[in-house]
Amino acid sequence: MGEITLIEAYKKAAHPLQGHGKRDLHVMKEALEGFDGDLDSDIYGSGKIIEDFQEKIADSLGKERSVFFPSGTMAQQIALRIWCDQKGVQRVAYHPLCHLEIHEEDGLKKLHGIEPILLADKDSVISLEDVVGLKEDIACLLLELPQREIGGQLPEYETLVAISQYCREKGIKLHLDGARLYEVLPYYGKSAAEICELFDSVYISFYKGFGGIAGAILAGDEEFTDESKVWKRRHGGDLISLYPYIISADYYFDQRFDKMDQYYEGAKELAAYLNGCKGIRTLPETPVSNMFHVFFHYPQKQIESILIGVYEETGVGLTGYVKEVSENECVFEASIGDQYKTVPKENLENMFTLLNEKLKQEHK
Amino acid sequence: MGEITLIEAYKKAAHPLQGHGKRDLHVMKEALEGFDGDLDSDIYGSGKIIEDFQEKIADSLGKERSVFFPSGTMAQQIALRIWCDQKGVQRVAYHPLCHLEIHEEDGLKKLHGIEPILLADKDSVISLEDVVGLKEDIACLLLELPQREIGGQLPEYETLVAISQYCREKGIKLHLDGARLYEVLPYYGKSAAEICELFDSVYISFYKGFGGIAGAILAGDEEFTDESKVWKRRHGGDLISLYPYIISADYYFDQRFDKMDQYYEGAKELAAYLNGCKGIRTLPETPVSNMFHVFFHYPQKQIESILIGVYEETGVGLTGYVKEVSENECVFEASIGDQYKTVPKENLENMFTLLNEKLKQEHK
Repeated sequence: MGEITLIEAYKKAAHPLQGHGKRDLHVMKEALEGFDGDLDSDIYGSGKIIEDFQEKIADSLGKERSVFFPSGTMAQQIALRIWCDQKGVQRVAYHPLCHLEIHEEDGLKKLHGIEPILLADKDSVISLEDVVGLKEDIACLLLELPQREIGGQLPEYETLVAISQYCREKGIKLHLDGARLYEVLPYYGKSAAEICELFDSVYISFYKGFGGIAGAILAGDEEFTDESKVWKRRHGGDLISLYPYIISADYYFDQRFDKMDQYYEGAKELAAYLNGCKGIRTLPETPVSNMFHVFFHYPQKQIESILIGVYEETGVGLTGYVKEVSENECVFEASIGDQYKTVPKENLENMFTLLNEKLKQEHK
Repeated sequence: MGEITLIEAYKKAAHPLQGHGKRDLHVMKEALEGFDGDLDSDIYGSGKIIEDFQEKIADSLGKERSVFFPSGTMAQQIALRIWCDQKGVQRVAYHPLCHLEIHEEDGLKKLHGIEPILLADKDSVISLEDVVGLKEDIACLLLELPQREIGGQLPEYETLVAISQYCREKGIKLHLDGARLYEVLPYYGKSAAEICELFDSVYISFYKGFGGIAGAILAGDEEFTDESKVWKRRHGGDLISLYPYIISADYYFDQRFDKMDQYYEGAKELAAYLNGCKGIRTLPETPVSNMFHVFFHYPQKQIESILIGVYEETGVGLTGYVKEVSENECVFEASIGDQYKTVPKENLENMFTLLNEKLKQEHK
């Protein structure tokens, strides 16, 4: 028993409670089953299969046009490049923990020569004051809703409106990193289009809350999206066939579009269970989407050992990893999807009762 | 009858003779059937599904390592960038009709700031003299085998050896655009590894002769491929899951690896039929791979009308398009795959007899 790792124990648990289940080939097989084999591939961005989906998502976002991309990394660099070229200013602003800053090997700088200004303290979301306080001229401001690296926090809707209005007055384009946009709509109580009308360009992802295989949409007006297609080709993203991603995006979008409220409610419930345990706190305390971060005020090794035991005794898996923050603290990211609702309430409560007992023992 | 277009007539023909058949969702469905649904997705370039395939193709190419990319456009720009950065010279040389020069919206220049020197007359393949005659210092020379835009022509193997040797002496890296590398092996009578050992880096494609969905491999030594993974992330090509392309590449690679000789023989036979018709010539006259170009010395509209009639009478489809070269000339690209062998010989001969008769009438 001592030899099993946390990820192994999580995978072995009868009830792993995060996400939509395994990322295996069944995800593709299930999506494909819903489509007629005689359907023609898209060809370099043309064809019914891609055009219909782009139109459907543009409509959902309330934008004139949208373009399917293999990745958000590609889509967002391109969005910022277009706005910078249009203004003749190779400078943008975003949060210090923005995806472009910490997960893309500096592609924005090394491929596009764009300089980012880091806005706001890294533990806070960007405020109107941060934007008004900008000293340098920028072409574009990027807002990420929710701010993933700080547990998925959100500014209030009124703040978004104020920032949007300010940017329009100052000739600053506003871009939405909406990788998890649909996941925050229940909190805002708004439609995707109502949020997107505050932004000039919008990126959304299909493998977070929607659980598709990969792929992204970049939306905006026609001039912007036409230009983005040229850059998509330059980046090597204008593949002869993107349909494996498109059909899975389409299939799981339809499957889960109406479930974002369920995931949000699940996240709030799970966070409450966790905050009821000794030495655990969640960020935010009350989630505003399907995701949040979970901090254990214990050493990583100790928590791993406790979790493995709890999974084995109760059959419920909470997380497959915890990451060390400091000697006495570790963290993981929780993300609620289809799985959470399938865990029997009794098992869930047993799991938290046992977890809390074990944590209390450690505190003695 | 007058209203049908050439592409419609080709699609309606009982025996379309090019390629592997339709690019529809059956291509994905067939490939997926061969794989266990429980197989885990690759995750950002890691996992058995991607690592095994990279190793398999590296072995086939006789290279230390290989990396799977969503596209050749991305893979090749990255290869050239790595060689340029390593030498500190932002200049490369390639053919005037190189893919990077004419099909990528100047991605190499606009994303990487690399200046290409165009080598050789556009109607010829690059010779040793062209390379020796280079006045500017370059980091890398790119050779495309076969040179697609001029009918898929090839330098002799001895020329490749001489160019490779010269480049090594001069400290110039040699990169292979081998989108159709396996397709030329029957002509050279060499293995892929025997050709690739002349090159420092190699790109191959999986949706030409192999008929996969999309995707590419970039191969070289470990230092080179490690660096290429960093750039793959910068380009937005390091997708969470590339498996739909990987499993189709793997499946069709296995299916068609041994059929390149059959395609090559088919191409030579088809070219002979075509060259036997009044006012048609192929480039090259005798193909050296599964592909070649077909020139009709007639106006485009006239040829379209003749071909539609021939397809409707004989049930054999030759091409879905012809492109105007000049008022009295048009051209299409022929590419032989699985389909050619399935066309009954009698139908094929009837088609060429009828085509030739109609062309002769036009000449009167």
